[in-house]
Amino acid sequence: MNVMENLLSERIKSTPPSFVRSILKTAADPNVISFAGGLPNPVSFPQEELLVSMERITKTYKDKVFQYSITAGLPELRQYIANRYNKKFGLNLDIDNILITTGSQQALDLIGKTVLDENDGVLLEKPSYLGAIQVFSQYMPKFHTVDLTDKGLNIEQFKSALNNNIKLMYAIPEFQNPTGLTYSAENREEIFEIIKDKDIILVEDDPYGELRFNGKHLPYIGAGRFKNSIVLGSFSKVVTPGMRTGFIICENKELLKNISVSKEASDLHTNIFSQYLIWDYLMHNDFEKHIAKITELYSKQAQAMLNAMDKYFPKSVKYTRPDGGMFLWVTLPENVSALELFPKALEKKVAFVPGDPFYINKKNVNTMRLNYTNADCDTIEEGIKRLGELLEGI
Amino acid sequence: MNVMENLLSERIKSTPPSFVRSILKTAADPNVISFAGGLPNPVSFPQEELLVSMERITKTYKDKVFQYSITAGLPELRQYIANRYNKKFGLNLDIDNILITTGSQQALDLIGKTVLDENDGVLLEKPSYLGAIQVFSQYMPKFHTVDLTDKGLNIEQFKSALNNNIKLMYAIPEFQNPTGLTYSAENREEIFEIIKDKDIILVEDDPYGELRFNGKHLPYIGAGRFKNSIVLGSFSKVVTPGMRTGFIICENKELLKNISVSKEASDLHTNIFSQYLIWDYLMHNDFEKHIAKITELYSKQAQAMLNAMDKYFPKSVKYTRPDGGMFLWVTLPENVSALELFPKALEKKVAFVPGDPFYINKKNVNTMRLNYTNADCDTIEEGIKRLGELLEGI
Repeated sequence: MNVMENLLSERIKSTPPSFVRSILKTAADPNVISFAGGLPNPVSFPQEELLVSMERITKTYKDKVFQYSITAGLPELRQYIANRYNKKFGLNLDIDNILITTGSQQALDLIGKTVLDENDGVLLEKPSYLGAIQVFSQYMPKFHTVDLTDKGLNIEQFKSALNNNIKLMYAIPEFQNPTGLTYSAENREEIFEIIKDKDIILVEDDPYGELRFNGKHLPYIGAGRFKNSIVLGSFSKVVTPGMRTGFIICENKELLKNISVSKEASDLHTNIFSQYLIWDYLMHNDFEKHIAKITELYSKQAQAMLNAMDKYFPKSVKYTRPDGGMFLWVTLPENVSALELFPKALEKKVAFVPGDPFYINKKNVNTMRLNYTNADCDTIEEGIKRLGELLEGI
Repeated sequence: MNVMENLLSERIKSTPPSFVRSILKTAADPNVISFAGGLPNPVSFPQEELLVSMERITKTYKDKVFQYSITAGLPELRQYIANRYNKKFGLNLDIDNILITTGSQQALDLIGKTVLDENDGVLLEKPSYLGAIQVFSQYMPKFHTVDLTDKGLNIEQFKSALNNNIKLMYAIPEFQNPTGLTYSAENREEIFEIIKDKDIILVEDDPYGELRFNGKHLPYIGAGRFKNSIVLGSFSKVVTPGMRTGFIICENKELLKNISVSKEASDLHTNIFSQYLIWDYLMHNDFEKHIAKITELYSKQAQAMLNAMDKYFPKSVKYTRPDGGMFLWVTLPENVSALELFPKALEKKVAFVPGDPFYINKKNVNTMRLNYTNADCDTIEEGIKRLGELLEGI
């Protein structure tokens, strides 16, 4: 084992273990009602339509869908993305602002790789997406966190955190993972005013933005007006995650060119068949209608979970009420460890993610993440009921 | 630009620019006969059969082919790979020795990420694969190179290079990229004897191994007998490169687990649809027959290139005679720069890759790489004839 240690990089030694994956394994028993994962409901995969598109692109573009391709990604798909965001958010993007990535997770890796040196400051929400913590950890930065409130970032903490040589700021302003919280328009404006003249990179991760079931879409903090604005998008939640197709929207084309060099070194280019497939699907189907179908379903499931929590959870337990996305966040009384609760929940055949991996070096926290997208309403009620019985005992 | 520099990591600043891609752009004119790329002939894509497999897997496995999946890769595909290598090379692999990657390029990135700290020693062939130089550069190691001869590594140089705190050795013993050279059985044995008790990681990159048109398959240097042996394989050259599906075969399961953590941080998992697709294709078709079809074609094309070179090139120009793979390597008289020749070749509507990017910090070398897999025999003869006219003038 000592020899093994010598062979590993400091980078991998400072990477947090794959918390959720190990938890998911223990929760893999099909009799367990799992709120632990982050799987979209299969209704979000337009399977029949994708099969039609597969036939069409294979017959139309022949060897092109199977051959090596360019690093930046299929121009037609990048144009579609530019057009969609220009229309929806009043932006002024062209295809050179867009880089196709192997899922949003790769986007985080490429950004970290391209901009982070050891000990550079990275600003995160507290709590933040565990996959971002994991991937940025590999570049050995110093993390600085800012409390997330139901309006967005705690502004005083935010101002103070910016004094720490911050190079990269990572936020999920819409239906945040893990909390389900959304930054208010005012909070976004305040954040923009504070950073607008600063030489930092602002990454707004937006994988769930299309999945809004309450209220109206809000403008991004930085897109279209902040020089080093990056927005991350993904087809994982609205077409298929298995195809690993996401994208980076970057205001600064010079920065994106550098990210693109990292992309080439990392995997040459994203699966070109999948890019043609998703583009063809988008061209030949009513995407808005498809999204509406998914959000309607998730809205019902989120409501089923909230109704069950109102009914079965003790009053001392608090939880968020998301306007979209896939998760909500439960806060237990202060002295209760969600991690210690986990094995007891498994005994009752119900699973969740204890809050720990969403924090930097914080253990036995009193929070947990629940996913509501991958179970039907009756199953959700039954799972929450079991969890409620457990929580009554704390 | 100064502000921009401040935002970039040392890592990206030490990454060589994307040489081949920029050259490929200038050679994108359809009237140019290009020997510059590394594209497989489309005959290597079993398009009809893949379409049949797409329909079958979509109907059989439904949402599973579109959903998130596990980081290690589809167990059925890993089992297939283990069985194939066990049978062909007398190995003793199980699925925990196999990690599916987003192409072989990602395998290089994951290995670099998992084992390399700044200034660690990396041993490469001279010349070596430019994509490996690019990706390892991002981890800022010290490179040490060993001359490649027509028998394999120069053994004296190799012994001496090993004195440089080498952590990782990277080699392409079969139909090397860029030279087309293959290590002899004796050279492999000598290398093994020298490293067998050393705590280094040996990566044998083998994307072309299936494409042998002369002679017999040779055993790997390390597979099955060296504790930190890694072999890289790929479906890019025998099924489809567009699907970005490669794999790592690693003797040391503990090491592979660490690489797998880097994989999860990098892109969660490889496109699961592609994994099902390739596995289904392999299960339902005569793969050996398909490989035979490709190698027969490449053999003819390689021969056409060699015949034309014998006919049109001046005697002062030397070249390798590959037994398989996709490339051959041309050595010009000592004082001739292939890079300076390149624009003149483009005027004659023929393109190649000047040798420069295959070396660490060496400029205006007298070598070039030619690819013979992606043009028919008549086009190859015409292209070599044009190149010959140019070389007559040097």
